[in-house]
Amino acid sequence: SRSINLAVIPGDGIGQEVVTEGLKVLSAVLPQDVKLETKEYDFGAQRYHATGETLTDADLEQLKGHDAILLGAIGDPSVPSGVLERGFLLKLRFAFDHHVNLRPSKLLPGVATPLAGQPEIDFVVVREGTEGPYTGNGGTIRKGTAHEVATEVSVNTAYGVERVVRDAFERAQARPRKKLTLVHKNNVLTFAGHLWTNIFTKVAEEYPEVTTDYIHVDAATIYLVTDPGRFDVIVTDNLFGDIITDLAAAVSGGIGVAASGNINPSREFPSMFEPVHGSAPDIAGQGKADPTATVLSVALLLRHLGYEAEADRIDTAVAADLTERAGKPARSTSEIGDALAVRVAG
Amino acid sequence: SRSINLAVIPGDGIGQEVVTEGLKVLSAVLPQDVKLETKEYDFGAQRYHATGETLTDADLEQLKGHDAILLGAIGDPSVPSGVLERGFLLKLRFAFDHHVNLRPSKLLPGVATPLAGQPEIDFVVVREGTEGPYTGNGGTIRKGTAHEVATEVSVNTAYGVERVVRDAFERAQARPRKKLTLVHKNNVLTFAGHLWTNIFTKVAEEYPEVTTDYIHVDAATIYLVTDPGRFDVIVTDNLFGDIITDLAAAVSGGIGVAASGNINPSREFPSMFEPVHGSAPDIAGQGKADPTATVLSVALLLRHLGYEAEADRIDTAVAADLTERAGKPARSTSEIGDALAVRVAG
Ligand SMILES: CC(C)[C@H](C(=O)O)[C@@H](O)C(=O)O
Ligand SMILES: CC(C)[C@H](C(=O)O)[C@@H](O)C(=O)O
Repeated sequence: SRSINLAVIPGDGIGQEVVTEGLKVLSAVLPQDVKLETKEYDFGAQRYHATGETLTDADLEQLKGHDAILLGAIGDPSVPSGVLERGFLLKLRFAFDHHVNLRPSKLLPGVATPLAGQPEIDFVVVREGTEGPYTGNGGTIRKGTAHEVATEVSVNTAYGVERVVRDAFERAQARPRKKLTLVHKNNVLTFAGHLWTNIFTKVAEEYPEVTTDYIHVDAATIYLVTDPGRFDVIVTDNLFGDIITDLAAAVSGGIGVAASGNINPSREFPSMFEPVHGSAPDIAGQGKADPTATVLSVALLLRHLGYEAEADRIDTAVAADLTERAGKPARSTSEIGDALAVRVAG
Repeated sequence: SRSINLAVIPGDGIGQEVVTEGLKVLSAVLPQDVKLETKEYDFGAQRYHATGETLTDADLEQLKGHDAILLGAIGDPSVPSGVLERGFLLKLRFAFDHHVNLRPSKLLPGVATPLAGQPEIDFVVVREGTEGPYTGNGGTIRKGTAHEVATEVSVNTAYGVERVVRDAFERAQARPRKKLTLVHKNNVLTFAGHLWTNIFTKVAEEYPEVTTDYIHVDAATIYLVTDPGRFDVIVTDNLFGDIITDLAAAVSGGIGVAASGNINPSREFPSMFEPVHGSAPDIAGQGKADPTATVLSVALLLRHLGYEAEADRIDTAVAADLTERAGKPARSTSEIGDALAVRVAG
């Protein structure tokens, strides 16, 4: 008999509320014969304040035993900027080698977008997750003086770039339009740019059916608002991916519906799935948070574990729910979760 | 008697066409007593192909003798990516210490924007121009092998950050809303992030009338499409500035109207003014290019040289022209230049 052994990290702010609904929908969509086990972990601001810990070696050992991780949100204004980001979120990505940071953007009918003319948007960004300017390389000398120098080193390896580029080609190959765009800034960041461009060009030869394209990151932000329909799959560096996926989320319905997966395709370590939005402490505990992004992240989680049909059922339910929502008064977090649970079960 | 000794660099693609109109408007707006001298330089793809040179020490010596530089566009698909960018554009910015890269964004009435609801947009980005990931620091080992490693080093100094932050506070102080937003990614790029944030906080104490704000670069792209009206002055790092100013141009009327100044406020070296758009080789020589961004760059140039009233006349003329244009058939490059020249003279 099949089973899913899930680590659940509600985290901070609205994290608990959205995760509750994500699990509700997950339970509703899974076939009877699949045994779902969950274990909750208390990572986040509260634990940091109580113990000074963000993510210990012992924590990582425990997390390793799970098939996947579902996370609500981590982050609170009471914690200095960078502590939970570097100490928890990035530490987890690096420890579990989450090199494919997957962020789909699809504008569903009836969903509000800041763009005029309701353009067609349906693309996915494959953001590299373990290299680039995110490695924490760099440092500071003469801190706090008028002669301070601070550096940040973007580290890019053929090994790291090739595996994520290959993953993106596979995803492009599997989609109807079969188009892959590399986003970088190879005219200025020429060392990293040449590495990315050369590997992209080399791997492309193995995928003759995939149409390829290159766009500088600055120009990519223009296309994302003037012609987002041109994109099918985008592959990009860790930092550029961070920036353009927030913009992509904004134009395709907002971060309330943006899902993401921090994936280790080899399954050597569990992958982690989370909504793109943060902990939103201003609306926490009020039942106002939209759990849709978490529910869509559950769909990515299911697809990663091989539950294709169940993932599709969630996507279909969310599309129907969003269309139905348009123009109606806002529902509470749990009302949306309930409605989605009913739809996926039906 | 007063005089302006201007270096003119038409460059590649549509560069010549737009610069011709920029100079037309400049001549028309200047009072009789101001003597305008111009000298044209042949930098760009053609010279590179003919001589292998992009910008020599002798070129820089000559350029130093001018009060300012007006540039059309540099770049051509026949030249490998990075050669003219690093060899000319960035070399000039670094050689003349253009540390204030000024990029205003204003959505004028009647001008098309990809955003729904024609929001109010009127802000200016002060982008650092001589540090960050643009310094060319970094390198490659084991090039072309499966073990290649490429690095890019972002270099940030207290000296470099403080001068641009001060410039931005001065600009914010001089504007009605007096609001300054720092855009960075200090939760991940913690070395550079702390330097920027600490200096920003320290300088803020000297400007008690200026309201300050901090936003991560990823979130900034969201606000630029959902609530661009919240911005007044933005100060940011070289690379973040590159990215968000293209997005800012896109939402506030397109790169056809986006102007920029590469400014050395000390006037130790001449500053350079250019439209944000590139050389657009696909439409070059057809009289289709919109010279408005170049004309607005001329206004920035005049303001830098102390010709406030003349700069204002250009801004007013452009606003009137853009409003009049709405819904009418497209005019040619020279028709737009002629119309603007008449308006500023009138
Ligand atoms: C919170 C932060 C560390 C993170 C990132 O920069 O990757 C976030 O912005 C994201 O996109 O997941
Ligand atoms: C062409 C390139 C070097 C340049 C930059 O990255 O600064 C351009 O994108 C700009 O914004 O002026």
